[in-house]
Amino acid sequence: MSAIQTNHRADFPGIAGDWHYLDTAATAQKAKPVLDAIARAYGPDYATVHRGVYERSANMTLAYEAARKRVAGLLNAASESEIVFTSGATDSINLVAESWGNSNVGKDDRIMLSQLEHHSNIVPWQLLAERVGAHIDVAPLTDDGQIDLDWIEANLTERHKLVALAHVSNVLGSLLDAKRAATIAHKVGAKLLLDGCQAAPRVRVDVQDIDCDFYVFSGHKIYGPTGIGALWAPYDILDAMPPWKGGGSMIDRVSFDGTTYAPPPGRFEAGTPHIAGVVGLDAAIQYVEGIGLDVISAHENATLAMARDALSSINSVQVFGPDKSMGILSFAVGDVHPHDVATILDEGGVAIRAGHHCAQPLMDYMGVPATARASFGIYSDAEDVAALVKGIERVRKIFG
Amino acid sequence: MSAIQTNHRADFPGIAGDWHYLDTAATAQKAKPVLDAIARAYGPDYATVHRGVYERSANMTLAYEAARKRVAGLLNAASESEIVFTSGATDSINLVAESWGNSNVGKDDRIMLSQLEHHSNIVPWQLLAERVGAHIDVAPLTDDGQIDLDWIEANLTERHKLVALAHVSNVLGSLLDAKRAATIAHKVGAKLLLDGCQAAPRVRVDVQDIDCDFYVFSGHKIYGPTGIGALWAPYDILDAMPPWKGGGSMIDRVSFDGTTYAPPPGRFEAGTPHIAGVVGLDAAIQYVEGIGLDVISAHENATLAMARDALSSINSVQVFGPDKSMGILSFAVGDVHPHDVATILDEGGVAIRAGHHCAQPLMDYMGVPATARASFGIYSDAEDVAALVKGIERVRKIFG
Repeated sequence: MSAIQTNHRADFPGIAGDWHYLDTAATAQKAKPVLDAIARAYGPDYATVHRGVYERSANMTLAYEAARKRVAGLLNAASESEIVFTSGATDSINLVAESWGNSNVGKDDRIMLSQLEHHSNIVPWQLLAERVGAHIDVAPLTDDGQIDLDWIEANLTERHKLVALAHVSNVLGSLLDAKRAATIAHKVGAKLLLDGCQAAPRVRVDVQDIDCDFYVFSGHKIYGPTGIGALWAPYDILDAMPPWKGGGSMIDRVSFDGTTYAPPPGRFEAGTPHIAGVVGLDAAIQYVEGIGLDVISAHENATLAMARDALSSINSVQVFGPDKSMGILSFAVGDVHPHDVATILDEGGVAIRAGHHCAQPLMDYMGVPATARASFGIYSDAEDVAALVKGIERVRKIFG
Repeated sequence: MSAIQTNHRADFPGIAGDWHYLDTAATAQKAKPVLDAIARAYGPDYATVHRGVYERSANMTLAYEAARKRVAGLLNAASESEIVFTSGATDSINLVAESWGNSNVGKDDRIMLSQLEHHSNIVPWQLLAERVGAHIDVAPLTDDGQIDLDWIEANLTERHKLVALAHVSNVLGSLLDAKRAATIAHKVGAKLLLDGCQAAPRVRVDVQDIDCDFYVFSGHKIYGPTGIGALWAPYDILDAMPPWKGGGSMIDRVSFDGTTYAPPPGRFEAGTPHIAGVVGLDAAIQYVEGIGLDVISAHENATLAMARDALSSINSVQVFGPDKSMGILSFAVGDVHPHDVATILDEGGVAIRAGHHCAQPLMDYMGVPATARASFGIYSDAEDVAALVKGIERVRKIFG
């Protein structure tokens, strides 16, 4: 197992000693340059953005807008004006559901989701559907845990205004054929939203090449700060969207006789933003790009393959999802409840997640109450996999 | 001027050398214990909350919920279940406007605001009024820049469902008689929302004693992190409010046949929260309470009085607002544009804000395009005031 190594473990103050963090799909540990950037942003550089006349505030505004450019680069957006900072992917999806959804989805219109979506890519659409009287369709999965695009193609109609899918599944690690999803959606005139939470940290994303219409991700899953995320959409789509949250900064002119709004992206960034979060996200993306997303992908794929092989060879262990899953591996140990698996692994210093992973409809579909899930990052190595295997052996011994 | 001192200047890495930060009303500098808490949260303590079975995640969940209790203590809420974490006061007000507003404000109902509100306490209500066909009334100010509660009392009707007012004005520093506002609102059956952004860092707040119905504030204005804030409301009000943002954590059970929601406060905290922000806010409140809000109030009042006296005695300088303003002082230097005032002050290392302060209706009311504003915090001292005076003298010399 010693073939899988990483030079980046020491970059993460949250990873130390004999502790094996295999919950990166829930949230990634933070690289030292991210912590340093945050400390500077809250320390000697601290000031508000967009408002202050004084030098430090002007500099912070430059840093804030440079981060927007960095996010545009990460996704290969045509312009940084297409990047809206939000409090996370959940906030981003709710923004689309409220602002774009209320204006573009009406009574008897339809929204296409899939069976493996995270709750954040289900509930906002259910709330929208309730508000406007629209309907939700749910695409099944193929036998190997991929969203069934053939089924979607066969079932999309002119009434479908939106297709909203996970770019990478947070439970199964399945990677969507995003370009095909875009082609299929556009054939009936629907927009495609991609939930990129698990993709952005581990796949090179190119929104122009994919030709999707909305892309969302969270900072904390790409080794960045909590409380920050982004929405990308082409400028003309953003420009046609009405404001969602009202407040400072998103306005052109406020008067009790009538208020006018700023152009995007400002229109969607009401209030003092999460300044340190934006600066920290910039540092995280710089860190990730410094290593290279291709390198990260290759590393995670190798680690995942090793883990999948090792777990598959253990009696009574069942692994879920496609053979080529992206850094995420759900599994079961016989009939042992996943929470018991996780608890015993924790005693051995191995942190995995057990539960429904905010994907209860997928659990129902798979016919399980929960799964155990190990997920990997740039700091994962062969020793993590070995510790996981050792822990599972211990589970099997205890539950004999 | 040497009577005004502070022992707390050294606690702030953002305040150093000969730089005079007088923009605390925009955002406060961060105390060292806040930076330390954030560094720990992103480093050796980092894990997600509410979901992980492993020990570090369980500990982070304890820290997260301890912070909720700390915020409840700051506001003297009856229970920590009445505290909802948001991305800031703007997010909090939008949550009330969307969730409570859509359910409780209807066609031809009325909302009472005042002329001095921040855009974040105007625009969400304008958007709500447009959605439901309600109307907004605007209370004038008294001659000394206080919200005219007599006028509000005389003009409130049974159609008014909400009165939403700044507890402390971000431009004039005016302190509202919040208890009287609550009594007046309740007499007609309206709810009272207080925008506590400027009050929470400088006034002891007791929501039970005030008897208001909603209280909001931002973490970054109380020496805490960006991207975090809170909403307080009595539990029965929160419990009757439908969800706003959909996503993970805010649900009871998600199914494509129908989703049920968690009780408050979880119902309103969709997605992975701003974990480090919450932990940092806890540290900020501990820091503020360690000094004591009475001590902070007294210090800021003394600093403000000194600044007001000094500025009032300068020829051609006009100071706005009540004599007893809370840590915030707006002023004009003859006909010099406030931006020029701020720019010249910046050259002398004095950082003030110039502009409309996200309160354009107040600027219109005062008949000015903008004001210059100096605002104080626990780290402000007599040297800051002296530097401000010196800078203004320079402005007067330049503009002759």
